[in-house]
Parts: sequence; C-alpha cells; structure tokens
Amino acid sequence: MATLTVPSVVPSPVEDAEQLRKAFEGWGTNEGQIISILAHRNAHQRTQIRKAYADAHGEDLLKALDKELSSDFERALLLWTMEPAERDAYLAYESTKRFTSNQWVLVEIATTRTTHELFLVRKAYHDRYKRSIEEDVAHHTHGDIRKLLLPLVSSLRYEGDEVNTTLAKAEAKILREKVTDKACNDDDFIRILCTRSKAQLNATLNHYNNSYGNSINKDLKADGSKDEFLKLLRAVITCLTIPEKYFEKVLRQAINKVGTDEWALTRVITTRAEVDLCRIKEEYHRRNSVPLATAIAKDTGGDYEKLLIELTGHGNA
Amino acid sequence: MATLTVPSVVPSPVEDAEQLRKAFEGWGTNEGQIISILAHRNAHQRTQIRKAYADAHGEDLLKALDKELSSDFERALLLWTMEPAERDAYLAYESTKRFTSNQWVLVEIATTRTTHELFLVRKAYHDRYKRSIEEDVAHHTHGDIRKLLLPLVSSLRYEGDEVNTTLAKAEAKILREKVTDKACNDDDFIRILCTRSKAQLNATLNHYNNSYGNSINKDLKADGSKDEFLKLLRAVITCLTIPEKYFEKVLRQAINKVGTDEWALTRVITTRAEVDLCRIKEEYHRRNSVPLATAIAKDTGGDYEKLLIELTGHGNA
Repeated sequence: MATLTVPSVVPSPVEDAEQLRKAFEGWGTNEGQIISILAHRNAHQRTQIRKAYADAHGEDLLKALDKELSSDFERALLLWTMEPAERDAYLAYESTKRFTSNQWVLVEIATTRTTHELFLVRKAYHDRYKRSIEEDVAHHTHGDIRKLLLPLVSSLRYEGDEVNTTLAKAEAKILREKVTDKACNDDDFIRILCTRSKAQLNATLNHYNNSYGNSINKDLKADGSKDEFLKLLRAVITCLTIPEKYFEKVLRQAINKVGTDEWALTRVITTRAEVDLCRIKEEYHRRNSVPLATAIAKDTGGDYEKLLIELTGHGNA
Repeated sequence: MATLTVPSVVPSPVEDAEQLRKAFEGWGTNEGQIISILAHRNAHQRTQIRKAYADAHGEDLLKALDKELSSDFERALLLWTMEPAERDAYLAYESTKRFTSNQWVLVEIATTRTTHELFLVRKAYHDRYKRSIEEDVAHHTHGDIRKLLLPLVSSLRYEGDEVNTTLAKAEAKILREKVTDKACNDDDFIRILCTRSKAQLNATLNHYNNSYGNSINKDLKADGSKDEFLKLLRAVITCLTIPEKYFEKVLRQAINKVGTDEWALTRVITTRAEVDLCRIKEEYHRRNSVPLATAIAKDTGGDYEKLLIELTGHGNA
C-alpha cells in the first residue's frame, strides 16, 4: 500500500503549475510551497502539472526545479516528479555508468516492478537514451553478474497465479543440487530465477524450504556471505518473493551508515511511496523498533527531510 | 511490401461472417468462397470478422474452420486467420514442443519482427499458454543454442537509426577476434548480436566486411558449415540484416525438398504476406529464375494451392 496522500479536492494542473511558478519567483524559492503541491499529487497528476507548466512557460518543470533547487532535496524532488517509468530508466542508466554504477538498483528495477512496468521502463530507456537497457547492462558488466543481470532486465514474466506443483518440485531439486555443488552461476539456476512467474518461483522456493530444511537464502548465505555474486543472487530472491523485506534492509543500511546514504534513501522513498511504502514502513518499524519517519527525521534535515516525511506519511507504521 | 490485396469496397464484418457461415453449411464446404473472403482481408478486418462470427454463432471462427477443413489447407487458413501476434505465439509454442521443435522458427520470430511486434507476441504467449516464451525456450533448449535463443527472444531492441561509428568499429573487432578464435559462443559475441539495434549491428557488420575482406557469414561458413550452432548464428545475422534473403532460402529449400516442406512454405507465406512478401518474391525470382507463384503452383494443389497463390499474388515478381 502507498503512503502518498492526495487531498480530496485537487486544484487543476494549470493552477498547480502557476503556484509552482510563483514559488520559483521573487527573492528566494518557496520550497515549502513546492513540497505542499508536488508531494501530494499522484504520478498522473504530476505529469499533468508538467504538461501545464511546459505549455505556459515553454520549459520542462524538471528543468525549472533543477535551476531553483540543489543537493539532496533537488535529487529527491526531481526523481519524485518524474513519471515512474522515466524515473526507473534514469536510475537504471545511472547504474550502468562508471561512477554511479549500482547493480542493486538494476536488480530492484528488474524484479520489484510488474511485468508491464518493466516493459514501460525499457521503452522509456529507448526514448531517452536511444539504445536499450540490456545493451548498457551487457556493456558495463561481465562474468556471472552479467549472466544474471542480462536475462533479469530482459524478463517479461507471466503474472498469473497458476502454479505447476510438479515443476516446482523438480526445480526445487535443481536449485538444491546447484547450491550443494556451489554452482549457483549455473545456466539452469539462473534460468529458473529469471524466467519463472513470481507465483511459480514462490512455490518452488517453498518446496525447497520444506524439503531441505532451510530457506534457499540461508543456504546461499552459509555458502559465502561476502561473495558479491551470491549477495546479488540473494537480493534477487528476496526482491521476487518478499520485496518489502529487501527495501527495509536498503533503508536500514542507508540510515545506519555513517553519514547516511542519501541516494539509497531517496531512491526507496521516491520509487515506493506510490506502491508499497506502507508495508515497508511496517517492516522497518518491526525490525528497528523505531518508526521510519522518526529515523528519517533524525538522520536528515531541512527541505530534504520535509519532502521525505511528507512522502513517507507521519503515522507510526 | 505486402502482397495481400484487399478490395476497394469491403463488406461489413457481419456480412463476411455470414458468407463464411453459408460456405460451411449444406452439402460440402465451399472452400472457394472461404478463400475469396479471408485471403483478401487484412489482419484488422479478419479480427473483426472473427468477432462478428463469435457474436452471431457463439463459436470462434477458428474452431469452425477447424471442423470444416483439413490438412495443409486447414493449417494455412488457420494460421492466416489468426492475429499476427497470436499466430507467432502459436508457432513459437509449437517450436518448443518435442515433435515440432524448430529453432529456426524461434530465430525468425525473435529477429524479423519489429520490437513492438515481438513484445505483443510475448504478451500473446502469456495469455494463451499461461507462461512466458522464454520459460519454454529455456526449458527446451540447452548449451550454446539456449545461450543464443534466450536473449534473442527476450530482446527489446532500440529501433532508431542512430549509429555510433566508434562502437561499430570496436565491436567489429570483437566479432572478428571471436571468429578467428572459433569462439562464437562467447558471451560478447552473443551480446552484440542479441542487444544492439539493427542499424547499429548493420554498421558493425559493414565495418567487419570492409576491414577484414569477407562478410562475417562467409567467415562463419568457412568455419564449419555443418555445425548446428554456427548455422543458426548465420541465420540470426541474415534475419537481422537482410530478412528477405533468409526467407527466400527457406522457401527455396521447402519447395526443392522431395515431397515439399508444407509447414515451412505455409509459415513464410502466411506470416509475410502482409509484411514483405513482395521483396521476398523478387529475391526468389532472381535466385531461382522462376516466379514464386509458378513454383508454388507446380509443387502444391487444390485449395491449399489456391490460398497460397491468392496470398502470394499472381504477378511475376
């Protein structure tokens, strides 16, 4: 469930665009005003505001925000204002560039979006960067990591609930054999993770757990907790089966880090506020004994803090 | 260019559906009537007729055709009547089944359709078979063939005309090294073929030809003309760069075969009649010194022949 709140009566996109323009004008920018508008409009409404702003002022709202704002607040507001597919394409692109390279973001986008959302991300990537996401991923990774990421970002998983129990048992056995042989970079292991529907994969992993006494992620952890490929593999599995647990961990590590990892914090809040941040907040509270909003308020400040808190919602869980 | 001809004034879908119903009724089926309608309606019109037929008679037109017709004529008419994405999903499904397994068909569908068409095929596959095409391809192939087919059917190539010349030169060099080392199953070799846009790949292969004196397919042929993987690789390259040449060869081999390969003949005619069968016909005439329609008429008979000829058009080239 989303944490985003939208007022029951929303001004027209033209009015919102005008209020934003006013917030940019005069001495100093009125950040509070910007937050009060944009942090309480859904993706469709924000896109309409961008259109209205471009029509009235001949400039993309993102450009205007870029001129008026700075640092973490700017990045958070830009990411939030973008359309979800455009935002993911942008994050994926960054993640294949040398200095902002980040395989976790690629895993997140490839596994926690719906099949259709991932398709829209790939289309947005074409439009924006004039090439495909898989070209860039393939070009900027190698070895086992590439072997895993390439089919993952190219996947178009079936989304029905149908489960083939015989197949689940057979594939749980394959997974177990590969784990036992320490051969998780095996073609079949990767194929199962990258092509099966989430429902089918879930059945397979449940069967694994029931038959072999441990969850697969526990076995993989015992296998080599520092191995980068195995870590990524565990993230893939968590993202596909219990995404809120994965995102809780990203938030926990971002907040607990000395100096705070603002990029990770911003990314999770802006990409999940309209999706499942409610569930992630519950998970966070349970795991850290402190509400997410409290932890964010403690670690951040100024307009950046205000925006994140508005998107996260003030409630305890 | 398409060979399909549609009359300037087309009856309503309801009228067409009624005429088809009449052709099914009474003593014997009126195959001529069926051909005269369906072979001269485009994909959209055929879909409308199917809808009208289902509304009027509570039965899918495909089911009715299946009851009335038989053998090669039936298969051709069923394939033709389907929507293009549905038809490709059907052909792909068949191609992953043991007794109708056919890697060439998978290559054709993955490489000669547009990016959006391939996406629609993958969606149609979900709808029809409750799983993804990549699951079935992965499950029914192995080794190098799987390594090639899996990213190929999952690709979402960028379709713009932009070409990066520096990249083309660099990747031509990579391809050349792999060909020289007889290592065409290498990750990079496959990545380049499976992810680059057709325009970019074309530039790369032209550069290969200019720099190393031979087309890459010539080099691959010298390398081992009987190797199944290399044959498939050459087909991928031809499909991506000069599809009409690939289809001409499929037709030539189907027609020249003792007994005629009706499945291949039917597949090419029904899938290309609305796309580029005109170009394929030209290519066929040039390579075989006989018009395609003449060759088809010589090798086939009855209603099957009539349908293929209507779809191919009567002209010489």
